Amino acid sequence: MSRPDPERLRVLVREPISAAGLDLLRARFDVVEDGDSELESIIDGFDAVVIRSGTTIGERAIERATRLKVIARAGVGIDNVDVDAATRRGIVVANAPESTVVSAAEHTIALLLAVATGEFGERWVALATAYGADVHELRYAWGETPRAGDVRQRVEETSAEVAFLVHSETSTGVVADVQALAQAAHEAGALVVVDAVSSLGAVPLETDAWGLDVVVAGSQKALMTPPGLSLAVVSPAAWERAGRSTNPRFYFDWARMKTSLDSGTTPFTPAVSLVASLDAALELLLEEGLEAAFARHAALGRACRAGAKAMGLELFSPDEDRSAVVTAILTPPDVDARELVLSLRDRFGITVAGGHGDLAARLFRIGHIGYYDVFDVTTALAAVEFLLAEKGVGIERGVAVARALEAYRETAHVAT
Amino acid sequence: MSRPDPERLRVLVREPISAAGLDLLRARFDVVEDGDSELESIIDGFDAVVIRSGTTIGERAIERATRLKVIARAGVGIDNVDVDAATRRGIVVANAPESTVVSAAEHTIALLLAVATGEFGERWVALATAYGADVHELRYAWGETPRAGDVRQRVEETSAEVAFLVHSETSTGVVADVQALAQAAHEAGALVVVDAVSSLGAVPLETDAWGLDVVVAGSQKALMTPPGLSLAVVSPAAWERAGRSTNPRFYFDWARMKTSLDSGTTPFTPAVSLVASLDAALELLLEEGLEAAFARHAALGRACRAGAKAMGLELFSPDEDRSAVVTAILTPPDVDARELVLSLRDRFGITVAGGHGDLAARLFRIGHIGYYDVFDVTTALAAVEFLLAEKGVGIERGVAVARALEAYRETAHVAT
Repeated sequence: MSRPDPERLRVLVREPISAAGLDLLRARFDVVEDGDSELESIIDGFDAVVIRSGTTIGERAIERATRLKVIARAGVGIDNVDVDAATRRGIVVANAPESTVVSAAEHTIALLLAVATGEFGERWVALATAYGADVHELRYAWGETPRAGDVRQRVEETSAEVAFLVHSETSTGVVADVQALAQAAHEAGALVVVDAVSSLGAVPLETDAWGLDVVVAGSQKALMTPPGLSLAVVSPAAWERAGRSTNPRFYFDWARMKTSLDSGTTPFTPAVSLVASLDAALELLLEEGLEAAFARHAALGRACRAGAKAMGLELFSPDEDRSAVVTAILTPPDVDARELVLSLRDRFGITVAGGHGDLAARLFRIGHIGYYDVFDVTTALAAVEFLLAEKGVGIERGVAVARALEAYRETAHVAT
Repeated sequence: MSRPDPERLRVLVREPISAAGLDLLRARFDVVEDGDSELESIIDGFDAVVIRSGTTIGERAIERATRLKVIARAGVGIDNVDVDAATRRGIVVANAPESTVVSAAEHTIALLLAVATGEFGERWVALATAYGADVHELRYAWGETPRAGDVRQRVEETSAEVAFLVHSETSTGVVADVQALAQAAHEAGALVVVDAVSSLGAVPLETDAWGLDVVVAGSQKALMTPPGLSLAVVSPAAWERAGRSTNPRFYFDWARMKTSLDSGTTPFTPAVSLVASLDAALELLLEEGLEAAFARHAALGRACRAGAKAMGLELFSPDEDRSAVVTAILTPPDVDARELVLSLRDRFGITVAGGHGDLAARLFRIGHIGYYDVFDVTTALAAVEFLLAEKGVGIERGVAVARALEAYRETAHVAT
């Protein structure tokens, strides 16, 4: 059909390999499948040869292959290749099954920048590292708010292809200005991937308007559904980039999923009860209206912060309207936050989260997203007041709840 | 602490790499982390060197490295290595991030044998191929029952390290004799991995007594829980083997899961509502008693087969007691099975499954596991009879249900 493109590398596939592998090769190279012609008579036309165990590549073939750069053995063992001859000629013999001809011939693994201001930013680092990416980190102290200028500078310095951001950093309560961070990353030349697990549906998030390439979220936060589902939105640019990755995948394969979805099905049995639940939850959310939900979360955040401050407690998360997902609060120095969290659970059936690492003894977090109203906030605050008073912390009784309700009323007025 | 083992390869880690990566290396090699000594003065002691971007390996260092086999660049780019000098000396420069020093120096990807008699056997092939394994197939026509002698022979021929089996092949209704297959695979030297998605809880499966190394199952079949959970049992030998794999993994990382479970938690938010559901379903199952459940499924299978045969339909799944999970039935040649399946759904709200590929026009499948009794079987048979009669197929009315109940009563008596 199409004539060889002189700019593109030419790959000879000598033995059957998986269709997915062929597709990957075809996306980037001129691929010729030919297991019949005499190898020595055709090898000089190729930059790479893909074989399995059935093809022998000896010294004579290698001497004729003037433009050959890579011999890729799909599978284990390279007895069928004269490696010494190849090595003398500077031809890479890639025999490890993970290292396909694509990755041997070009660098297909991304240089990444992960912006980490807490546990979930650090998870981006761990996740990308586990998959062999070259990860640069833009690391802040936990609780700091990431800055667009830093992102721009680090993307430029590192030539990172993709910047990984966290919208709502649940471990600290910080909600980042993803719009500004994404713009900076884009201007510096990187695609943008956003962890929106706890932010989607809680605070404004404009996938297209902000130019976010990938947004991933979970069902179990502001979307008010039991955990078990994840959601991903993928831009054309990210789709193209993901297609070039040679990392193995099967159940997490976007392409496999999309092919099935396009014909109205799923590639594997989905968690049907959760999909039905999510559908019902999204109806609730859209009935309320997204703007109204955002306003409610903002008002709940203000109420929670006002109540905590009224008790004399120090906020760990920023005292700003964007902190509308979870409020992180420090206990007084002599009160162990871990004990507080357990007492809330065991004595009152109230679930709040503890802190991580160094912060475990001092930090607790009240979430206020999803199916949640101001009386949930006041209940949590009242219980905290009760337990702190029991510990001898001097608190004016009832002040937290009163201030929380005041702040909620004012904000709710402003917002609606 | 321990002195160098002359049998083990020695790896110099020159720059920081992930702890997980170090652990993998340490499991197999003598690893020295040294970023400070002058490289040229120490390099001759090592078989492999792991670097990132901060180490330059020039011609002089390479000339001194008389036993060096691999220079592994963790990350992208190899400007910092004199590749020409390395190539002249026959030293592999592994610069693709996926191809770690472990996989470059040794073959850590398994040679696998996948036994395929239907869709789910073929999924083992697709899955293992996607992850870069060297997969040999023992492929039968759909609907055939795999034979232990074949497994033994193919494992011996291929030296496969792991044999992948399917216990209940849902696409055809065949339940394999996993005990015999596993014994043959073991005797030939392979570990055994079993897909027990639709068989666990439906028919006898003895993980330990049959020496199964990995058994994986799902929540949504005989375990009577909505889909969304998978279960895995792993033998010490399989655990050890999995630890040597360098395939990237994060959310599917057994080690990460086990570490968390050992301390009473999970590494990531689990699908809590499904876990609670599974707990309730397992109580139901244990209340009935496993043996009683197996007997019920066997009786339901007999009932379904007897009913189908009484209508003059041809069975596709074997007419044997082990076929107790799903019964695959062929329609008469002039009746399209796809149409039958849709009519059952749309007119009567009865869900049966169709066939795949070439069998789509002729095959339908009645499942009879989990929360299912004989009247579910008779309802399905009665509806099939109704639709076939409508199509003009000559069937003695009521005979399918009558024979099914007879077969159920006889078998239930035998089994209890």
